[in-house]
Amino acid sequence: MISKLAAKIKETSPIVVGLDPQLKFLPEPLLEASFKEFGENPEGVCDAIFNFNKRIVDAVCDLVPAVKPQIAMYEVFGIPGLIAFDKTVKYCKEKGLIVIGDIKRGDIGSTSGAYAQGHLGHVTIGGKDYRGFEEDFATVNPYLGSDGVKPFIDVCKAEDKGIFILVKTSNPSSGELQDRVSDGRPIYEWMGEMVAKWGEDCMDGDYSNVGAVVGATYPEMGKVLRKIMPKSFILVPGYGAQGGKGADLVHFFNDDGLGAIINSSRGIIAAYKEEKYAKFGAEHFEEASRAAVLDMKEDIASALG
Amino acid sequence: MISKLAAKIKETSPIVVGLDPQLKFLPEPLLEASFKEFGENPEGVCDAIFNFNKRIVDAVCDLVPAVKPQIAMYEVFGIPGLIAFDKTVKYCKEKGLIVIGDIKRGDIGSTSGAYAQGHLGHVTIGGKDYRGFEEDFATVNPYLGSDGVKPFIDVCKAEDKGIFILVKTSNPSSGELQDRVSDGRPIYEWMGEMVAKWGEDCMDGDYSNVGAVVGATYPEMGKVLRKIMPKSFILVPGYGAQGGKGADLVHFFNDDGLGAIINSSRGIIAAYKEEKYAKFGAEHFEEASRAAVLDMKEDIASALG
Repeated sequence: MISKLAAKIKETSPIVVGLDPQLKFLPEPLLEASFKEFGENPEGVCDAIFNFNKRIVDAVCDLVPAVKPQIAMYEVFGIPGLIAFDKTVKYCKEKGLIVIGDIKRGDIGSTSGAYAQGHLGHVTIGGKDYRGFEEDFATVNPYLGSDGVKPFIDVCKAEDKGIFILVKTSNPSSGELQDRVSDGRPIYEWMGEMVAKWGEDCMDGDYSNVGAVVGATYPEMGKVLRKIMPKSFILVPGYGAQGGKGADLVHFFNDDGLGAIINSSRGIIAAYKEEKYAKFGAEHFEEASRAAVLDMKEDIASALG
Repeated sequence: MISKLAAKIKETSPIVVGLDPQLKFLPEPLLEASFKEFGENPEGVCDAIFNFNKRIVDAVCDLVPAVKPQIAMYEVFGIPGLIAFDKTVKYCKEKGLIVIGDIKRGDIGSTSGAYAQGHLGHVTIGGKDYRGFEEDFATVNPYLGSDGVKPFIDVCKAEDKGIFILVKTSNPSSGELQDRVSDGRPIYEWMGEMVAKWGEDCMDGDYSNVGAVVGATYPEMGKVLRKIMPKSFILVPGYGAQGGKGADLVHFFNDDGLGAIINSSRGIIAAYKEEKYAKFGAEHFEEASRAAVLDMKEDIASALG
């Protein structure tokens, strides 16, 4: 799966659109149309979420290789939210996009196996295979060690899927645990070493189907981690709204111009709310998103120079 | 919420039943009845899962204070699975049980906030409140630090709910990260210190609504952690099938006989498959579960002396 992502990045850009549709991002006209049909309730909101995603995806799908729906923003609405998540994943795949499920799951062995099957694999009932959700990649939390990660790797191998393991997250307090020094090196470096080791067993072309998450907000750490995990793609959140800039991204890439994919969520999907893109208006929010992707593409290209 | 759990433990036992219904645990007759009604597919399996849970809950609800459904075992079946999870949570609450959602979520601030709202809190749409899922407690992964935990604590305070934060997990490889020594102490001790600190702000009677997860498989570490977090309840997985024994549990309790709640999943829900309880047969699986709870209660009581 990582070779497919690399090929699509070469054709388009190293940008992933974070489909994290909070209620406050939804344009009024869109929301009202759904409320009219389904009522002013979770079903109404979740219909609007799906329509919102669909219009953004239609507007940007020729510019980016992938989307990253954050499942929490759907799970918050319970079952109707997860139905919207499922429909979003399927719609993005119909449009030829690679889907990174930002699910940050991780548990003891048999339980991680269930998450891996449910999001990247399948279950077999009466000799027939069924897929729960249908992402191409999933993000994984490594707090439980190898036991919790290996079931994901097994499913990746069997189904040609991939994972991105949390190494150094973009949030302000990520250092409380991840920067603690042990045997002379911070925890995130040890995690990077583990990602590199897990990844050896799961190569797909020049890169491994086992990647890592490293925040754009920590570019110096990204530089070190890039070297520790040369064969791992880095999924980089934190660009834009969280403070990461184009110039910060240079060190996340390898010399082949690959090895990183940069996420932006609200900077793209809620672009119409920013002064810079206000001219598009709430009625044409997807055109603001397209303009924001084009600007981001230019920002990254000029930084990589 | 923790004071409610403590009161129910005094009335019954410090046992939580892990409702983790893997396909292989479901008795044939139950499965066949659901397949007849819904087809041999995820809908059929998930109907059987709910019926399985229901009969076990009916059989043990006077003996235990709480259940702990592991959401991965439902999520693996996609939407039908999550509908069965939701129905299970609601049914258990109807029967007066406290529900610990074993969801191990954790993300950056706004995203953790969405998980917290979705599982322990509510969303407001058009002035009306809606609940996604309706657990009383949730398990939380602390890899992202305070940012990822505090949104859960905020919801706990607003809604009188609780969390159990992963500190030292029961699985064999948990030490790869959690036992790493930093500043002279293992990571799990530092996490224990953080749980104690987070918990101060969230007291409910003698204990805090912020608890911890520490595996029965690591009793010596449990002993240390008990002292580091005197006001935190410890949710103890790993008893039974994972190898933890009654005698290992002593150190997880405080002198007041409280402070710990011991989980058993397959040892209770799949008891009918064990030689010891085989006499009940697949037709009366719930009676085997009841017998297993009674035996576990005795094992713990005799260990606590």
